[in-house]
Amino acid sequence: MINKGIASKEAARFMANVSAEDKNKALINISKAIRENTKRIIEENQKDIDNGKKKGLSKAILDRLLLDENRIEAMASAVEDVAGLQDPIGEVIEGFKTYNELKISKIRVPLGVVGIIYEARPNVTIDAAALCIKSGNSCILRGGSEAIHSNIVISDIIAQTAVGSGLPKGVVNFIDITDREVVDIMLKLNSYIDVLIPRGGSSLIKKVVENATVPVIETGVGNCHVFVDDSADLQKAIEIIVNAKTHRPGVCNAIETILIHKKVAELILPNLKKRLEEKNVELRGCSETVGLINCKQATEEDWSTEYLDLILAVKIVENLDEALEHIYKYGTKHSESIITENYTNSQRFLKEVDAAAVYVNASTRFTDGGEFGFGAEIGISTQKLHARGPMGLKELTSYKYLIYGDGQIRK
Amino acid sequence: MINKGIASKEAARFMANVSAEDKNKALINISKAIRENTKRIIEENQKDIDNGKKKGLSKAILDRLLLDENRIEAMASAVEDVAGLQDPIGEVIEGFKTYNELKISKIRVPLGVVGIIYEARPNVTIDAAALCIKSGNSCILRGGSEAIHSNIVISDIIAQTAVGSGLPKGVVNFIDITDREVVDIMLKLNSYIDVLIPRGGSSLIKKVVENATVPVIETGVGNCHVFVDDSADLQKAIEIIVNAKTHRPGVCNAIETILIHKKVAELILPNLKKRLEEKNVELRGCSETVGLINCKQATEEDWSTEYLDLILAVKIVENLDEALEHIYKYGTKHSESIITENYTNSQRFLKEVDAAAVYVNASTRFTDGGEFGFGAEIGISTQKLHARGPMGLKELTSYKYLIYGDGQIRK
Repeated sequence: MINKGIASKEAARFMANVSAEDKNKALINISKAIRENTKRIIEENQKDIDNGKKKGLSKAILDRLLLDENRIEAMASAVEDVAGLQDPIGEVIEGFKTYNELKISKIRVPLGVVGIIYEARPNVTIDAAALCIKSGNSCILRGGSEAIHSNIVISDIIAQTAVGSGLPKGVVNFIDITDREVVDIMLKLNSYIDVLIPRGGSSLIKKVVENATVPVIETGVGNCHVFVDDSADLQKAIEIIVNAKTHRPGVCNAIETILIHKKVAELILPNLKKRLEEKNVELRGCSETVGLINCKQATEEDWSTEYLDLILAVKIVENLDEALEHIYKYGTKHSESIITENYTNSQRFLKEVDAAAVYVNASTRFTDGGEFGFGAEIGISTQKLHARGPMGLKELTSYKYLIYGDGQIRK
Repeated sequence: MINKGIASKEAARFMANVSAEDKNKALINISKAIRENTKRIIEENQKDIDNGKKKGLSKAILDRLLLDENRIEAMASAVEDVAGLQDPIGEVIEGFKTYNELKISKIRVPLGVVGIIYEARPNVTIDAAALCIKSGNSCILRGGSEAIHSNIVISDIIAQTAVGSGLPKGVVNFIDITDREVVDIMLKLNSYIDVLIPRGGSSLIKKVVENATVPVIETGVGNCHVFVDDSADLQKAIEIIVNAKTHRPGVCNAIETILIHKKVAELILPNLKKRLEEKNVELRGCSETVGLINCKQATEEDWSTEYLDLILAVKIVENLDEALEHIYKYGTKHSESIITENYTNSQRFLKEVDAAAVYVNASTRFTDGGEFGFGAEIGISTQKLHARGPMGLKELTSYKYLIYGDGQIRK
């Protein structure tokens, strides 16, 4: 582990000054190598699938693990897309002149060594590596044991092709030891890792946040809400709720609870229930909701649960204030949406809700690097420090000040 | 401690939406209250000075502790200056439209609750509180036990005046318990504190970084260098070195080691030695330096020591490459300066040195929020995440995305 740390740090020093052209050349070569090795990747992936079946992993996890020709082509193509993005490094973020004629430029530089700890999805290996290379960082990847064979073959292809394309040895390091103690060491490797990004379930994220001494960017947990105001266009509200709940229920920007203004509850709930039940969504309502439609009664626990499943909690509220209070109390500052035609209420919601992404009249599912137009995403930050919301290439950078003087001394 | 956390968090929610006008009014009132209470502050400060003398604190620390009329006037005036700065909150950092006509604004918001742990200087209490108020944050302040009487009276004046000016109770919290266990609790108060900024010596900073689960912005440690290239204007080099070492030797942006190109060592060293000795600087040289001028021999330890004192290590190097290697090995990524007339060498130094502030032909003493024109400073970050270099108001903020839709759902 420490050897990988040393190698990564040395590589990061070199990577900071690699030209955009050379980084892109390496990425294109990696993309080609992934395509050329499709058969080998599928063979190794099959071992993970076989082991997973023996271990009795769920169908959902097995599906996340699975790599077929289409998915490998998608991986290769995603790397090409990253190569096509603008190089963030060297961008002049700001520039100014001081009272004594020092000329100062604030320019974008890489973070250094990025550590990524993730779970079963092997495509994270290549996405993360590509984004780190493009942003001039080196990386240490630690994927879940379920995907170990897939990850080893993919990371080998990346690392060999990167070095073959002139990037330094150590630019992409995969931790091939599945022992959990390796993660404990990684969390405290301050001398070699500049930032840790955990990607996965809440227990993984909690473990990293509580034990790491390396700076962490927290990602992922999303207890997201849609609030239907009394002035809402109810048809839009229904479409948005159905989309935000069912488009992909297992991800962090899906909603878990809806809040409905009491004046429109009776109007919207029967139709909404019908549409959600067509999608097999189970509803859990507050006492008032249960009085209006036939559904399970919600408990206190429901308001704070991120189901990541086809379950939706429903609460009828007095007004916008009660909705804001509920979101303040139970929200995780990820994505929140108001459906309203009332100007003042829309402005209050945008101002008073403290979340990475606050929406008016749109689905929370848009909190995503691709949808925001960042071209790629390394995760969605739910913290306020450094990066908030979807993280693309820029969020994998820091900056430094260049100061051009002419003999200035401080008086 | 937990009660202060709860109060701070509630206050932060309110503070995020206080208008610039109301924040400025409170700051002006605080400034007035400080002036009006000059006598009371001096009386309480005298208790700290008396205790400090009994405890045998050094003259330097006693001087940092001391508040007189001039220093209190400077504190009051600094708060007025902060009131005069532009409000960072609400600034639209970026704005764009997505492929499906979502209009997205990235706007600046406060971090929330800022925890500051510092040592003997009581002016930090008011500087930190003023910057947090202006940037819409609440704060929890924990100052050193040496300044406890001064800090209590100053923080009382601030907190009372803030509340009297309409800001929420809990906007400024001072921890008046000097027990060290309080700090241990503070370091793990993730539910209530959004970021911790330690300000002080390296042992304080190390303790915070190693033990905090709350995100930390590391500040302060600076093992800074000046490299005199063979093409340097030697007169400029001497003035810059003397300034960077002696202008204020106890601060992080002072230099600790100079690196001199072997071709100019014999030319510059005698004059430089004379000028530095006039300022009582002790030189510690490498073997080659000792061969040229009469000075103490440096040991390996000297290259990594932040003296914060009138001591300067001197190393003669073969060329720019050796200088870059030395800085990479021993530097703390704070501030580094090259003195050169060679264009290519200046560009290489700017590009290859990884530090918050990289200078050409200027003193490292300019790495400072005031000198950069930020108007005020909460500290100098030596990490890469979130903020690097001098931290002013903007560095006490985060952002959120506001998304204006018209019924968009994700396809």
